[in-house]
Amino acid sequence: MSTHKNNSGITAPKGFSAAGRHVGIKKNGKNDLTLVACECPATAAGAFTKNLVHAAPVAWDRNVIKAGGMVRGILVNSGNANACTGKQGMTDCLEAAKTYAGLLKCSPEEILICSTGVIGVNLPMERLLSGIKETFPLLGSGINHDEDAVAGIMTTDTYPKTVSMTIELSGKTVTLGGMAKGSGMIHPNMATLLAFVTTDAAVSGAMLQKVLEDSVEETYNMISVDGDTSTNDTVLCLANGLAGNKEISAEDEDYRVFRDALYEINKKLAIEIAKDGEGATKLLEATVSGAKTKGDARLIARSVISSNLMKAAMFGNDANWGRVLCAMGYSGGTFDPAGVEMSFNSAAGSILLMSGGEPVPFEEEKALAILKEKEIKILIELTDGSERATAWGCDLTYDYVKINGDYRS
Amino acid sequence: MSTHKNNSGITAPKGFSAAGRHVGIKKNGKNDLTLVACECPATAAGAFTKNLVHAAPVAWDRNVIKAGGMVRGILVNSGNANACTGKQGMTDCLEAAKTYAGLLKCSPEEILICSTGVIGVNLPMERLLSGIKETFPLLGSGINHDEDAVAGIMTTDTYPKTVSMTIELSGKTVTLGGMAKGSGMIHPNMATLLAFVTTDAAVSGAMLQKVLEDSVEETYNMISVDGDTSTNDTVLCLANGLAGNKEISAEDEDYRVFRDALYEINKKLAIEIAKDGEGATKLLEATVSGAKTKGDARLIARSVISSNLMKAAMFGNDANWGRVLCAMGYSGGTFDPAGVEMSFNSAAGSILLMSGGEPVPFEEEKALAILKEKEIKILIELTDGSERATAWGCDLTYDYVKINGDYRS
Repeated sequence: MSTHKNNSGITAPKGFSAAGRHVGIKKNGKNDLTLVACECPATAAGAFTKNLVHAAPVAWDRNVIKAGGMVRGILVNSGNANACTGKQGMTDCLEAAKTYAGLLKCSPEEILICSTGVIGVNLPMERLLSGIKETFPLLGSGINHDEDAVAGIMTTDTYPKTVSMTIELSGKTVTLGGMAKGSGMIHPNMATLLAFVTTDAAVSGAMLQKVLEDSVEETYNMISVDGDTSTNDTVLCLANGLAGNKEISAEDEDYRVFRDALYEINKKLAIEIAKDGEGATKLLEATVSGAKTKGDARLIARSVISSNLMKAAMFGNDANWGRVLCAMGYSGGTFDPAGVEMSFNSAAGSILLMSGGEPVPFEEEKALAILKEKEIKILIELTDGSERATAWGCDLTYDYVKINGDYRS
Repeated sequence: MSTHKNNSGITAPKGFSAAGRHVGIKKNGKNDLTLVACECPATAAGAFTKNLVHAAPVAWDRNVIKAGGMVRGILVNSGNANACTGKQGMTDCLEAAKTYAGLLKCSPEEILICSTGVIGVNLPMERLLSGIKETFPLLGSGINHDEDAVAGIMTTDTYPKTVSMTIELSGKTVTLGGMAKGSGMIHPNMATLLAFVTTDAAVSGAMLQKVLEDSVEETYNMISVDGDTSTNDTVLCLANGLAGNKEISAEDEDYRVFRDALYEINKKLAIEIAKDGEGATKLLEATVSGAKTKGDARLIARSVISSNLMKAAMFGNDANWGRVLCAMGYSGGTFDPAGVEMSFNSAAGSILLMSGGEPVPFEEEKALAILKEKEIKILIELTDGSERATAWGCDLTYDYVKINGDYRS
């Protein structure tokens, strides 16, 4: 994966521009509005929260994607989730879309909208609408606004998350770019995560939707920060075809190359979200292999990464394999406990903790050295089959409690 | 419910004695062995963890209960869970049961065993067996050893949890007594919770098992401390018939009186466990009414009480109803979000936060006063039907992280 210094995110592919600025939604003066624009209509795909309670912009975007329409722009605000805002929430979406569409000279149905932040407060529409007008002129001005754009989607994130890469499709160079935000309310079936992927590939709407959904299952749906699935989770993908490749309209070789690239983009962003989980000091990666079914492997890996007890143990550098096994046991996934092999790995080495379902004596000092690293891999090998899955998470820390005990105020 | 000062727990009913002492399993010198004895064979019922990975004593007890045998004693150790201990774990159970049975002059199959503590370490059998012999003479010596007995089952609990009450069954006074321990790895489908209920009622084995299972669903399976379901959860109930009532062998009026009493006993103990959750400063109670089905009500109430974000907000005295609604939405329970009414109650008053699915403006100062109390009730009224359920939990605090970041060491 090549990561560009310039146009390193969603503006890396041809035809996309982005801008972000502070328009008065966040109290802290940080960027809170981001506009993404495509110079031509782009094919759009989306994946959304499975929470029964979803925010107005999620309902708006579902309608846009369902209609199969082409999209010209994305409007994102942070600081206010526009969730639990009743009918006013949808009215506000429409008004915001109209304003941005008017500037882009397209219809409101060609605008996708995302919001993230506090729940249950109506959007400050006056500030938002004037903010859209103020931000619009920055688009396409030839300056790289990726940094401002990604800043505008952040909430409690401590750093921006962007990625880009190039691939070859039917002899043409195709670029993909992405940006995402976490960092709390992150749990399988997405989270308060917003992720945006742009590409200049030509992909049919049906194929783009399929490849995005498959990718989300293996990436954003395999991370957990705190077990809470948010009302606003949204992953959007726009493909504008400006790379000039032959349109991907079937699951052929080009599809597979594009699929693998999209997976890498989404995996990178998902891992960054887990790593930057609220209060996190460590990235945790759990890989389950030898499972009977893919579903079992995924349930087990996600359960391990979601266990508060395991996460607190990791914060304390405690090689508490019992908590890992316990979380496997209540995961809902099926496996033979007598066949479990488990080891913890990091840059400082590897240590075997269980074999044949029983504990293996280990040196506490060696375990401590391994767990003091910032990236810990939990490897679980089962004897039930040949399926595997990986999930990512973070440790549970004092700062998680601090951040979330005092968020709204 | 009458709570006795003397014989306030499991020795309140006729015919039961108990003792506890430190025998060298815990490093901190606190009690780590508890013996419960019944002077005659008692009908036994049990409910166990649903974790696929279960400890040796769980397997042992399941066999005893399944065989429908009468029971003479219960042997409990804390400090070591005898979980993930392979074949040696079952061998150790048998040896411990043999030793206690030899002293009680019964068969090993008349002994139930529970363990709680660290996972993956074999029991220190020499200390355990000599401990059983040292503790046995304390049984039935006419002195109330309830306090020592309940101390012997505790791990990170900060106070003992006991309860007793009397009821009338067919003109006879019947007593029920109970003791339990929490306080981490507590989640629906039990937890590292051990609970023991004794009664001098005469109840058939089949009725006792049914009434216990029903009661567990509404009590121990409705509490959550940290979302982790343990390998050792066990609830045992012994009924020795010494009260002389007509044996309960059908779901008649006596059954209902006994059922209600058992529910009160288990509810009291379950709430105490939630209240004493690791690091907890507050007891949280979520009641969902107006749900379409009982299952929906339970899923929603448990999801609310299990949300890390909601728990952290409660620690911070933050009336963050949005996190409650969010947790309802991902619970898996079905409801109409547009019909949600929500209020927070405590000794300091009540405050309405949502009505008709939309936020209601409220005074932050009043909310703060309500949330500063030690027991907070979250009342959720739905418009989908007439079913209801209550779940209990606690806040998520710095101390939870501290306790669990540094438990094994």
